[in-house]
Amino acid sequence: MSDQGTQPSDTDPTAPDPQAQQEQASSGRQTSVYNLDAHTRRYAQRTAGMTASEIRALFSVASRPEVVSLAGGMPNLAALPLDSLGEEIARLVSTDGQAALQYGSAQGVPQLREQICEIMSLEGIDAHPDDVMVTVGSQMAMDLVTRVFVDPGDVVLAEGPSFVGALGSFAAYQADIVHVAMDSDGLQPEALRQTIDEVTRQGKRIKFLYTIPNFHNPAGVTLATERRAEVLDICARHGIMVLEDNPYGLLGFDGQTYPALRASDPDNVVYLGSFSKVFASGLRVGWVLAPHAVREKLVLAAESATLCPPTLNQMIVSRYLSTHDWQGQIKVFQEQYRERRDAMLGALEQHMPAGCDWTHPEGGFYVWFTAPEGVDAKAMLPRAVTQRVAYASGTGFYSGEFGNRQMRLSFCYPTPERIHEGVRRLANTITEELDLVHTFGSADRRPMTGPQAPSPDTA
Amino acid sequence: MSDQGTQPSDTDPTAPDPQAQQEQASSGRQTSVYNLDAHTRRYAQRTAGMTASEIRALFSVASRPEVVSLAGGMPNLAALPLDSLGEEIARLVSTDGQAALQYGSAQGVPQLREQICEIMSLEGIDAHPDDVMVTVGSQMAMDLVTRVFVDPGDVVLAEGPSFVGALGSFAAYQADIVHVAMDSDGLQPEALRQTIDEVTRQGKRIKFLYTIPNFHNPAGVTLATERRAEVLDICARHGIMVLEDNPYGLLGFDGQTYPALRASDPDNVVYLGSFSKVFASGLRVGWVLAPHAVREKLVLAAESATLCPPTLNQMIVSRYLSTHDWQGQIKVFQEQYRERRDAMLGALEQHMPAGCDWTHPEGGFYVWFTAPEGVDAKAMLPRAVTQRVAYASGTGFYSGEFGNRQMRLSFCYPTPERIHEGVRRLANTITEELDLVHTFGSADRRPMTGPQAPSPDTA
Repeated sequence: MSDQGTQPSDTDPTAPDPQAQQEQASSGRQTSVYNLDAHTRRYAQRTAGMTASEIRALFSVASRPEVVSLAGGMPNLAALPLDSLGEEIARLVSTDGQAALQYGSAQGVPQLREQICEIMSLEGIDAHPDDVMVTVGSQMAMDLVTRVFVDPGDVVLAEGPSFVGALGSFAAYQADIVHVAMDSDGLQPEALRQTIDEVTRQGKRIKFLYTIPNFHNPAGVTLATERRAEVLDICARHGIMVLEDNPYGLLGFDGQTYPALRASDPDNVVYLGSFSKVFASGLRVGWVLAPHAVREKLVLAAESATLCPPTLNQMIVSRYLSTHDWQGQIKVFQEQYRERRDAMLGALEQHMPAGCDWTHPEGGFYVWFTAPEGVDAKAMLPRAVTQRVAYASGTGFYSGEFGNRQMRLSFCYPTPERIHEGVRRLANTITEELDLVHTFGSADRRPMTGPQAPSPDTA
Repeated sequence: MSDQGTQPSDTDPTAPDPQAQQEQASSGRQTSVYNLDAHTRRYAQRTAGMTASEIRALFSVASRPEVVSLAGGMPNLAALPLDSLGEEIARLVSTDGQAALQYGSAQGVPQLREQICEIMSLEGIDAHPDDVMVTVGSQMAMDLVTRVFVDPGDVVLAEGPSFVGALGSFAAYQADIVHVAMDSDGLQPEALRQTIDEVTRQGKRIKFLYTIPNFHNPAGVTLATERRAEVLDICARHGIMVLEDNPYGLLGFDGQTYPALRASDPDNVVYLGSFSKVFASGLRVGWVLAPHAVREKLVLAAESATLCPPTLNQMIVSRYLSTHDWQGQIKVFQEQYRERRDAMLGALEQHMPAGCDWTHPEGGFYVWFTAPEGVDAKAMLPRAVTQRVAYASGTGFYSGEFGNRQMRLSFCYPTPERIHEGVRRLANTITEELDLVHTFGSADRRPMTGPQAPSPDTA
């Protein structure tokens, strides 16, 4: 169809744009002007910001069985009662399949939305099912909240570091992501105030603060209870909405829960929840709780995004909640992850050379690790994989050039023995790296940590 | 937290915007400026275009059991083998649950992508599984294709009328939707040429042509085989990508299939497929087949949209395809829908007053009906529901003010008896409406049909 040989290449600045092609064709020239590169010239402006995340590039290497992967965030599902779950789903399909396999509403199955309200009440939230919308994982909720609120160039505040998936959603809508510093007690209220002042002085418009208060991904810290009212107050005073992301809130290792931000400010907080970490990630069932007017806009946005979330998956979760001891199952998860956290902290203590630092999470999946000066975590990764251990380098969790001495170490998926072995291999890699640095100097010329990075005393 | 009594209302043009609020708060004023209306002022520009579709508003009324709904597009799942399907899913969860309930790749399960290529080969498509991405229904594929290609103000060409869900996706990205006329042989090549010339003269940039070649929703027509090469050639010459949406292609009532547009132009066609109409809509499993570079961008967009499609649902479809006689099942669907189409056409012939016109679909779910002059289908709908029949008024299937004499009548879901009764009730409603029109004149002052509407001889 096209004569590709005579077409300018994608990198040729003289290449005609589609507009010109359309005019040319309309003016009567009958030669085909289509070629493969044409697609590249047709992309929307937002598409320029879509690049493969470092974590994604890593998954294929890190998934080889001989490599201990401390990189992924996959929950450990081995403890799930798969047989009884399978039987329950078979009953559901055989007795109620015509509903379960049919289209549903964009807002989600009413019974599940009621059960979601019961779950949220465990963290002090008083909500009505009509203000809940079910989503295809809470990733979709982030996407839709951003879609509804963010124009290109609007500022979104996010902890530094922050969840890579959220940063991806914000970037997809051309948000200007500005990080706010954390310490071992989570987001720093004073840093939040200063950042808001600075951004406002620059004449930019802040749309919302994205925060993961509990067992932070990737930082492994929790927002101190006494800071919560202050963060809410700062945002309310400045007319900034709060987007609270809470996938790990029920995975505190002592069974403790923290009061949700949404519990004390129903009007200014949009809350995201998920069944991915407390039940099954592959079902892709999450939710958003929002003030009524916002929830209405989110439903309209969801209709154009996926029409409706999968009915079957929602009914499976609903049945699971009503027929299984889901709170007992969460206790099993808590114990399992606590054991793995302990294995990781013990191994770090035992094997890491001097000058390393790391957080001590009380729940969730992640330890945030800071290597000694001179180590470039991203550059070191291929050498670590050669030594059969993988991690997520810190740079992926920032929108700017930060986190190059940091790594996210996940303890959720490997067994305690594998975690211990992985940390031992990582310690060897770092030790060898430091030997190289001391001999030849560091190749890393970037700033070690920015003002956005958690301070090294995050312990 | 807020002092709502003293806050300006949302409609008050003097209401401060968040930017001003942020500056005010930064300047030291300590009063809270937050109120509920604040959310409305924070919405992105694209959110202004998000309004509830007419069809959605209809679903709640039309779902009462005494109403015969000819409005929805729900497939009839009664013929599915629910017991054996339930058993198959139970086996899947019990033996392979740790994979089925876990995160997967954004592109989708490899085995399913191979099977999708086999399905597409039935319509002449030669594709590689690596160029396929699985989506949460093909609605998500439309959303992502638009996300990757459309900047605000870019033109998307679409048949007039067109699928309401696609129009919603295009509107969500602020596309300028321009309709192209159809007749009983589908999209008119000459109208396509003229529309491209006109839009190009206006200095606008056309990103793609969205088309449903087979058993069109809502028009019920099929693009004639001899027109297909011409449509492809026009688009290729003008540098316009083709987005081919084909959810009904295997639901031809005589078992006939048409050659997919993608089959003869792999480089310039992005193809959308779905299991919603040939297996189960509630699983939300669809796919997109795209040239390699485009597919890569789509995967990146999908990661920020939902992280990955539900693994369980993909594995269910894959197992169903390999363990059930899915082609035999499609034959059952074809026969069922043909019987219902016949019931509808027979009842229309028997009951409708003079001056009505309708299409004669050879497959799919829908008849496109044109009422006599003077009838406003949208205004008449409440009176039809009072007479216990519902339809989708034609205006919902256009982006402009067209289709007010038209209705989409679905024959997919009700039984033949209910279809007959529904059409009888609709005929009575129209007859009474015409009596009113002849007595008092029509309240309808809008143009009867635009140049974009299928011509009345679409039979």
